Amino acid sequence: MAPFHCLTFLTDYGLEDGFVAACHGVCAQIAPGARIIDITHLIPAGDVRRGAAVLAQTLPYLPPAVHVAVVDPGVGTARRGVAVAAGGAVFIGPDNGLLSWAVAVAGGASRAVSLTNRELWLAAVTPTFHGRDIFMPVAARLLSGAALDSAGEEIDAGGLVTLPPPVSRVHDAEAEGEVMTVDTFGNVQLSITRSDAARIGIRSGANVVVRWAHRTLTVPYRETFGAVAPGDLVAYADGSGLVSLAVNGGNAAQRLALPPGARVRLAAATR
Amino acid sequence: MAPFHCLTFLTDYGLEDGFVAACHGVCAQIAPGARIIDITHLIPAGDVRRGAAVLAQTLPYLPPAVHVAVVDPGVGTARRGVAVAAGGAVFIGPDNGLLSWAVAVAGGASRAVSLTNRELWLAAVTPTFHGRDIFMPVAARLLSGAALDSAGEEIDAGGLVTLPPPVSRVHDAEAEGEVMTVDTFGNVQLSITRSDAARIGIRSGANVVVRWAHRTLTVPYRETFGAVAPGDLVAYADGSGLVSLAVNGGNAAQRLALPPGARVRLAAATR
Amino acid sequence: MAPFHCLTFLTDYGLEDGFVAACHGVCAQIAPGARIIDITHLIPAGDVRRGAAVLAQTLPYLPPAVHVAVVDPGVGTARRGVAVAAGGAVFIGPDNGLLSWAVAVAGGASRAVSLTNRELWLAAVTPTFHGRDIFMPVAARLLSGAALDSAGEEIDAGGLVTLPPPVSRVHDAEAEGEVMTVDTFGNVQLSITRSDAARIGIRSGANVVVRWAHRTLTVPYRETFGAVAPGDLVAYADGSGLVSLAVNGGNAAQRLALPPGARVRLAAATR
Repeated sequence: MAPFHCLTFLTDYGLEDGFVAACHGVCAQIAPGARIIDITHLIPAGDVRRGAAVLAQTLPYLPPAVHVAVVDPGVGTARRGVAVAAGGAVFIGPDNGLLSWAVAVAGGASRAVSLTNRELWLAAVTPTFHGRDIFMPVAARLLSGAALDSAGEEIDAGGLVTLPPPVSRVHDAEAEGEVMTVDTFGNVQLSITRSDAARIGIRSGANVVVRWAHRTLTVPYRETFGAVAPGDLVAYADGSGLVSLAVNGGNAAQRLALPPGARVRLAAATR
Repeated sequence: MAPFHCLTFLTDYGLEDGFVAACHGVCAQIAPGARIIDITHLIPAGDVRRGAAVLAQTLPYLPPAVHVAVVDPGVGTARRGVAVAAGGAVFIGPDNGLLSWAVAVAGGASRAVSLTNRELWLAAVTPTFHGRDIFMPVAARLLSGAALDSAGEEIDAGGLVTLPPPVSRVHDAEAEGEVMTVDTFGNVQLSITRSDAARIGIRSGANVVVRWAHRTLTVPYRETFGAVAPGDLVAYADGSGLVSLAVNGGNAAQRLALPPGARVRLAAATR
Repeated sequence: MAPFHCLTFLTDYGLEDGFVAACHGVCAQIAPGARIIDITHLIPAGDVRRGAAVLAQTLPYLPPAVHVAVVDPGVGTARRGVAVAAGGAVFIGPDNGLLSWAVAVAGGASRAVSLTNRELWLAAVTPTFHGRDIFMPVAARLLSGAALDSAGEEIDAGGLVTLPPPVSRVHDAEAEGEVMTVDTFGNVQLSITRSDAARIGIRSGANVVVRWAHRTLTVPYRETFGAVAPGDLVAYADGSGLVSLAVNGGNAAQRLALPPGARVRLAAATR
C-alpha cells in the first residue's frame, strides 16, 4: 500500500471534551510522524448524512490520506467497522453510509475490509468509543505501512452501506433538488449543480425562480453574494459547484426557513 | 530529564480569541519541533474541577509529554505556578488542584518545583496571562531539554493543592457517586466505576435502579447506547470505564436534569 | 525572501464545515512541511474590525510567518487580494483593512503586491472561496520559497485600505477610548493603554472612574481580576497592555452592556 503521511479526521465528538485529543494521542503513539488534518468535529450528534456531505465536499482539497470519519450512532452494535480503498486514499469508519459519498467522489471503492483483526486495535476496547479504540489505531497502523488486508477480512465492496444520493433531477425547464447543507454563514446549499442550472438556462446576471413548499421567490443569480446589496437574497454557485442561496451579510437559512432535506425547484426567470 | 517531543494543552481560553494561538506561537519560537495536542480549550471559564476531570480521563491515551493546563481563576494572585513530574510526564499549571487528578492517574507526583525562575519566562509578564507568559515558555524550554529543577525551587510534592476526589462509595448493595461530567452528547458520567457496579451485582443485560434527589428510575444496563431503542434511556460503562446514563440519540443530562456534582445511587434491579 | 516554516490562519469560516480543512489540505499539498497555527476561525461573519484586532494583538507572540487572514464580505467583487511584506512577515488576504492593524504592529508595509498571477492559484477558482482557491495556495507557494513579486504586480503600499485606528485620546485628566473587543470571558477591552492610564494618574491599588453613555461607575484598578472578590467589577491592564473591565468569575460585557465600539472615558478617582 502506498505510504501516507497524512490522516484526516471528522467526527461528531464536539470540542468540549477530550475525545478528539485522545484519538490524536493514540495516533501520535503509533505513528509519531503523522500529520493530522481535522476536518470538523462539530457534525451534529449522529447526523450521518451531514457528516457524509462535509467529508465528500472537502475531499477534493485534501492530500492523499487515510481518512477517519466517525459519526456512529450504532457504535457497539452489529454494524461493521470498515476500511475502504478508493482512488489512492483509504477511508476508515463505521459501515453506516458515512463514507459512501466521499468514496464515490474518490472514484468508487476498489477494495474493502471489515475491521476484524484485533491485533491492530488498542489492547482494551470499550463498546462506545471505537473512534479511539479501533478506527484510529487501525488508521495509524495503515499510515505506518501496514497492509490494508492486515486490518481484517476482505469483503465485497458492493455490499457496503451507501446513503441514497441527494435528489437532483432536471425535467424540462426545471431543476429539482434538496437542501444539502446549511453552512456556518446560513448559506443554503442545494443539490443542484452549476452545470444543471446552466442546462436549463439559468445564467449569471439574470434571475432565477426558486420554489419550495408553497413559496415562490425570484432571486438574482450572480457570481458571488457581494454582487447584491447588503441584506438582499442572491443565488450563486458555491465553492463546491452547487447552487446556493445566501443573504449578503445575513442568514438565508433563517430568512427562508429552509432546513437540510427540504425540496427546492429552480427555473430561469423569464424576465 | 527524558526528552519529550509532545506538549498537550488544556485551557478555558475559548476558541474565539487569539489566546490559544499566542501560546502556540510562544511554543513554536522556543521549541520549533514540538508537536502540540490541544486537549480542549472549552472548559467552562474557571471550572477547575471540569478541567481536572477532562485532563485525567484523556491522559491514558496521550503520549509521554509536557502537559500544560490552565484553568486559573486566581491568576496573578498568591497561588503558585508549578511543574510536577509524575510517571514519566510533566504537568505544568497553576497549583489550584487542576493538575491533581491527572497527576494521580500518572502514578503520583515524584518531584515538584515552584515556577520561580524568571529566566524561563517571557521577558515581559502580564498579571493575567500566565499561560502565555509563564506556563507555555517554561513548558517549551523543558521540552527543549531544560532540567525540571531549572524552572524554580523544589517544593514538597505532598504540599500541592489537590481537589477532593469525587464521591464514590459502595455500601451493601448500593453504589453512591456523583455526576463527574456531562459530555457534548449530554451523556451523564458518574463517578461509579464499572467494577464497583459489578461488585454490587449490576450486570450487562439486566436493569439498574438509579436514585437521585426524590426520583427513582429503572434503566437497562447495556454495553452501548445503541442497544436500546432511539429515545430510550440506558446505563452503560463509558470509554473511561465509568457508569454513564445516556438517551440513545438524545440528551440524558437534559432529560434527567442531572448536572455535574449531583449525587446519584445505583443498585441492581431485583427483576 | 526569507524562508518561512510557519503559516498562521485567521478567518470567519467557523468550525462546523470543512472550509478550514480544505485550506489546510491545499497548504499540505503545496508545502508539505509547513506548520500551520490557527489563530481563530470564529471571527463573527464579516466582522473585519474584530478580525483585525485579534490578528494585531496575537501577532507579537507568533513566529516569523506568512499570515493568511480572510474575513471577506466582498469576496468575488472588485476588492483586491494582496500580499503585504512588513517587519519580516508577509500578510495575505483581502485588501479591506483586515490586515492593516497587524501590518502597523509589524512596523508598517515595506512592499505590497496585488495577487494577480493566476499561476500561483488553484487551477479552478470559485468566486466565493478565495481563501481556499487563491490566498492559501499563494501563501503556501511563498512559504515554499516563491518570491513576493511572483504573486502579482507591485502596488503602492500607501494605497492599501486601512481601518481607522480606534479612538484613543487623553485630554487633561481624562482618557477617552472605545471598546476594542469582548473576549470569551466577557472581559471588556478598551483602546486605552496602560501607559495612557498611568499618564492621567490611574494607579494600581487605587480606583478609576468609568463613564459611558449616561452611566458613571467607580471601579478598583488592580493587577488582576483575582484581586477583587468574586462577582466584583475590576479594571486592569490586560495581556495586550490595554485597560480592561472584568467581573471576577463573571461577565463584564453583559453586566455593563458594553459592546464593541462603545465610547468609554476613564479618570483617576479622587479618593
